Amino acid sequence: MKELKVGVIGCGAIGKAHVQRLSNEVAGAKVTAVSDYVQDTAREVAEEYDAQFFASAKDLIACDEVDAILIASSDPSHAEYTLECIRNRKPVLCEKPLALTASDCEKILHEEMMAERHLVQVGFMRRYDSGYVEMKKAIENGRLGTPLMINCAHRNFYQPENFKTDMAITNVAIHELDISRWLLSDEYEDAQVLKVRQNTKTNSDHLNPQLCILQTKAGARVIIEVQTTNAYAYDIQCQVVGELGVINLPDPSRAYMRTEAHTETPLMTDWSERFIDAYTVELQEWVKGVHKNCVEGPSAWDGYAACVTADALITSRKTGKPEKVLTIEKPEFYK
Amino acid sequence: MKELKVGVIGCGAIGKAHVQRLSNEVAGAKVTAVSDYVQDTAREVAEEYDAQFFASAKDLIACDEVDAILIASSDPSHAEYTLECIRNRKPVLCEKPLALTASDCEKILHEEMMAERHLVQVGFMRRYDSGYVEMKKAIENGRLGTPLMINCAHRNFYQPENFKTDMAITNVAIHELDISRWLLSDEYEDAQVLKVRQNTKTNSDHLNPQLCILQTKAGARVIIEVQTTNAYAYDIQCQVVGELGVINLPDPSRAYMRTEAHTETPLMTDWSERFIDAYTVELQEWVKGVHKNCVEGPSAWDGYAACVTADALITSRKTGKPEKVLTIEKPEFYK
Amino acid sequence: MKELKVGVIGCGAIGKAHVQRLSNEVAGAKVTAVSDYVQDTAREVAEEYDAQFFASAKDLIACDEVDAILIASSDPSHAEYTLECIRNRKPVLCEKPLALTASDCEKILHEEMMAERHLVQVGFMRRYDSGYVEMKKAIENGRLGTPLMINCAHRNFYQPENFKTDMAITNVAIHELDISRWLLSDEYEDAQVLKVRQNTKTNSDHLNPQLCILQTKAGARVIIEVQTTNAYAYDIQCQVVGELGVINLPDPSRAYMRTEAHTETPLMTDWSERFIDAYTVELQEWVKGVHKNCVEGPSAWDGYAACVTADALITSRKTGKPEKVLTIEKPEFYK
Amino acid sequence: MKELKVGVIGCGAIGKAHVQRLSNEVAGAKVTAVSDYVQDTAREVAEEYDAQFFASAKDLIACDEVDAILIASSDPSHAEYTLECIRNRKPVLCEKPLALTASDCEKILHEEMMAERHLVQVGFMRRYDSGYVEMKKAIENGRLGTPLMINCAHRNFYQPENFKTDMAITNVAIHELDISRWLLSDEYEDAQVLKVRQNTKTNSDHLNPQLCILQTKAGARVIIEVQTTNAYAYDIQCQVVGELGVINLPDPSRAYMRTEAHTETPLMTDWSERFIDAYTVELQEWVKGVHKNCVEGPSAWDGYAACVTADALITSRKTGKPEKVLTIEKPEFYK
Repeated sequence: MKELKVGVIGCGAIGKAHVQRLSNEVAGAKVTAVSDYVQDTAREVAEEYDAQFFASAKDLIACDEVDAILIASSDPSHAEYTLECIRNRKPVLCEKPLALTASDCEKILHEEMMAERHLVQVGFMRRYDSGYVEMKKAIENGRLGTPLMINCAHRNFYQPENFKTDMAITNVAIHELDISRWLLSDEYEDAQVLKVRQNTKTNSDHLNPQLCILQTKAGARVIIEVQTTNAYAYDIQCQVVGELGVINLPDPSRAYMRTEAHTETPLMTDWSERFIDAYTVELQEWVKGVHKNCVEGPSAWDGYAACVTADALITSRKTGKPEKVLTIEKPEFYK
Repeated sequence: MKELKVGVIGCGAIGKAHVQRLSNEVAGAKVTAVSDYVQDTAREVAEEYDAQFFASAKDLIACDEVDAILIASSDPSHAEYTLECIRNRKPVLCEKPLALTASDCEKILHEEMMAERHLVQVGFMRRYDSGYVEMKKAIENGRLGTPLMINCAHRNFYQPENFKTDMAITNVAIHELDISRWLLSDEYEDAQVLKVRQNTKTNSDHLNPQLCILQTKAGARVIIEVQTTNAYAYDIQCQVVGELGVINLPDPSRAYMRTEAHTETPLMTDWSERFIDAYTVELQEWVKGVHKNCVEGPSAWDGYAACVTADALITSRKTGKPEKVLTIEKPEFYK
Repeated sequence: MKELKVGVIGCGAIGKAHVQRLSNEVAGAKVTAVSDYVQDTAREVAEEYDAQFFASAKDLIACDEVDAILIASSDPSHAEYTLECIRNRKPVLCEKPLALTASDCEKILHEEMMAERHLVQVGFMRRYDSGYVEMKKAIENGRLGTPLMINCAHRNFYQPENFKTDMAITNVAIHELDISRWLLSDEYEDAQVLKVRQNTKTNSDHLNPQLCILQTKAGARVIIEVQTTNAYAYDIQCQVVGELGVINLPDPSRAYMRTEAHTETPLMTDWSERFIDAYTVELQEWVKGVHKNCVEGPSAWDGYAACVTADALITSRKTGKPEKVLTIEKPEFYK
Repeated sequence: MKELKVGVIGCGAIGKAHVQRLSNEVAGAKVTAVSDYVQDTAREVAEEYDAQFFASAKDLIACDEVDAILIASSDPSHAEYTLECIRNRKPVLCEKPLALTASDCEKILHEEMMAERHLVQVGFMRRYDSGYVEMKKAIENGRLGTPLMINCAHRNFYQPENFKTDMAITNVAIHELDISRWLLSDEYEDAQVLKVRQNTKTNSDHLNPQLCILQTKAGARVIIEVQTTNAYAYDIQCQVVGELGVINLPDPSRAYMRTEAHTETPLMTDWSERFIDAYTVELQEWVKGVHKNCVEGPSAWDGYAACVTADALITSRKTGKPEKVLTIEKPEFYK
């Protein structure tokens, strides 16, 4: 198998981790090019991994020594780089969010359909987590019967300085928005944010927690509790309630102690550890898919659906009412 | 300790179980009188437990050989019998609901205040369950920090024939309405019922499940999933989400097996087994309280609050909007 | 039901708790007489529970106002008081151990057979614990297949001052010796104590921990880890390994928290809380049995078997080899 | 990083899986040569992975295009191939057992010491399992205090046709023999096999289960229950009992269901899935170590210690007594 030459745009913490994974843990790929608007960072990574440094992401995308692109740059740049990849007819794995606005997402859908080829995958890595995969199988094999509800909790230990209220939806709950759609094989009908008593330790200006409630087209309810900071751990919980039973996302496997008159199992505090295996599977599957000319991961449509749903939630927080999740009609291309 | 002479009104399944408990498992009490509108049933119980049979509940309440009354008759009779007990200045433990309407509850509040003595206890037995008691302590000792949300699930295996949609609130979720108020030491501000995908096996005419969302005066959210029939077990779940941690109602202690390539722990299907210890503690504490002239269990106010909240939920189901939970101002007598 | 008049010999912590249970939590019984070699203690209990004080246990046993006797006095007195009860043809519940020596046990067996009536029950209360009962049922209903091994751990938080090495067997592991025989419906063939690394915090003169390994007549192995002091909690574990699966004694039901980056469930430190429900069931069943003239709890034979097995273990600790568990042939009377 | 050229001897199930891992999941290595005494199998693998086929393992070891060797051939061939690798001064990862006899192990120790370089690693992959690693850390950071005992269970679903009684020790329990030594940082003093009631479904001629009890030089006890076939699952349990607490090997992370009136989590039946991540980490660490000229995994001494301990257990099964674990004095080279 010839190695896939991957160019990575964005060499921050996430980008660097992806470069390391592609180099050391994923078969059939190597990182041949890197770029970052902080050029020194990119140069260091380029040197360490024997890749070419590009001052311009556009040049990296166009380069002959780049077969496929991974975008891990800052959120506002995602849409433009993704479009550039499509224009170059190169497969691209773009970290979430796909774009900041629904119209930018629609532009990407349009361009990709024009290219008549599935080029775009969005970095919803949880779909590759073994726990969620097991839940999906339990739904599909019928053991739960019709799924009625999903209860999610996304509790985080801390966030960087400039965190804003909207980001609790667009950057945090967005994972739950995607995974619930995927588990249910359904689309959202409406979405609302309910006010909830605030964490007294959140002394920044953002709302924490927030409570999201969604309804799918089939009528299933999805409830998402979002604690963006100051929670007791980085703790991700998900329960699908079916008419025949419930299934829960398992905690990571950690040793169980009995000491000092209690039982105890450690929880994580660092989000980057929680889905670390899922990231590797995600990249491995993407590399395999690109080799076979058949990218089957989360599509541009999934990125779009998440974006439109996030918008509805943010609007609802302001109107205080449920808001319709209004997408364009789903094109045949994405079915 | 002189034995408390208890008269029991209602000799159906619950009433009979209470007679048995008062006779065999509770110290300091004996059942001296029973009544039921199905007279044969009451006569049998009277004979078995060496108690006096009364054709009239009113006569039973008035009888000198009855120091205190336990009401376990049909729901519509609760208010009238409770009022009669107050008029006779006799302590009464009334199974939930205290009354069918808020105005009947208010009448009871009024009469009890006129009597200038706490005579009425409502049968919210979960407050005596060791699991809920542990949760209450964890909140009060500050380990959870400010409580932000409560997630409840009430999943039931089956209901009798004539079950109606409203009863999912008035007879089922009412336990969660009470226990959440009690855990939070708070009152409800508003309440709503959200539509949710229906269990395909519910072929009767009632809605199943229903999803209730409440907001307390302090802003905490209470979410109650109510599956009245056809659930996988009789399963009661409750999680308090605080800013410093979460605490979960424990399952009953049952042996854990590993067999046939899975782990397995039995769940219950019979609601009457789930809180069986709580019923005994409830009755024991009530008997002790009556002996000391100091009934401290769930009060008429608690019965009233549950009733008004249930009304708001039922209205919300029809209006499709959150409804205010409007009570009279809480009298000093009940603080 | 006429109330059974119970005389209690021994008013220390355990005796007093039994008096309280018989008075307040058990139906069909009342404590009419108490005795203790510390007379003031007995007098206080007599007053509190409106019972008669006896300076002499022998007089208490003979008294007409005593239908049945509960022995909770110091270990060396058990055999003599039990024999006296048999001589008076009165049912007796004797706390473990039944006697200090096998020959004293045999004397009791002999006297009871002469009386031609089952009068003696030994206080192996764990047989009434719902967890062990569930395990017994799982074995009997065949879900585990042939039972092959039992793994027990008895870990204790602390022991009173004068604790001696032998007491780890005669007073601590004795519960595991009985419950394992009962779970397996089998008798022991041989028994040994293996040396094991010692707890560095045990600064008294007794060995801690000790490791007991037994073999039943059917070949099943029973392993008992005994930590008498300084363990992390009072923690009782038991696992039956069958050819089709394993079953574990459940922990008591306690609320489960997630806080401070770990999950946590409390464990007990006070042994007297651990089987508190089992004690109540034990007494209730004993009272019912006496009323029906049919005592079916752990018999004098069970007390004898435990005593002989404990002796074999103590001998093995000294010889360093497995020792046969040598009992008289089991009389028809005890089958 | 130049890729390490690995030659793999043995292309059965385990060997093939290792070839796949080295090719697709491990960074810095590629399989350049394969060999198997079933030549067709080796030729297929060679073709699939673009490696060179060798009819002779000796030629493969000597080949210039082979930097390091992985031995996954049949047990009797391990010692000879390992010695050949040492003679060629090439690093070798040999699947357990290192050799069939203690004297062959000693020969390997001798040759490796003569080579004055650590060339041999033995395939005790469990040391790379995250659960065992967590347990090791808990012991080393002192949270458990002095370790007193280890309780292991190795329960297997099935074994191939020609399974023999001794293999329960040499091929099955050998993993527990190694991991317990490693967890305790201790050597064995003596070892015994106790008879235990047999699984009625084991209709072949081997003993099942067996119960191994070992004592380390520090006095800690290691108990190993070995069920080689017909167990309820492939289930590996390990508990370290320390004076301050116990720690348990976690089960793999699997989704937890509540359905049909019970809770349920799947267990594995296929041993090859259980430590699949550990195998990858093992190979990755080995490759890194070889690159740095510093192989730090389980050494030839560890393979020798396991072999001698297994011999003592097998002897004990025949003598019915504990047997000393007699090794040569540990050379400075292996400390």
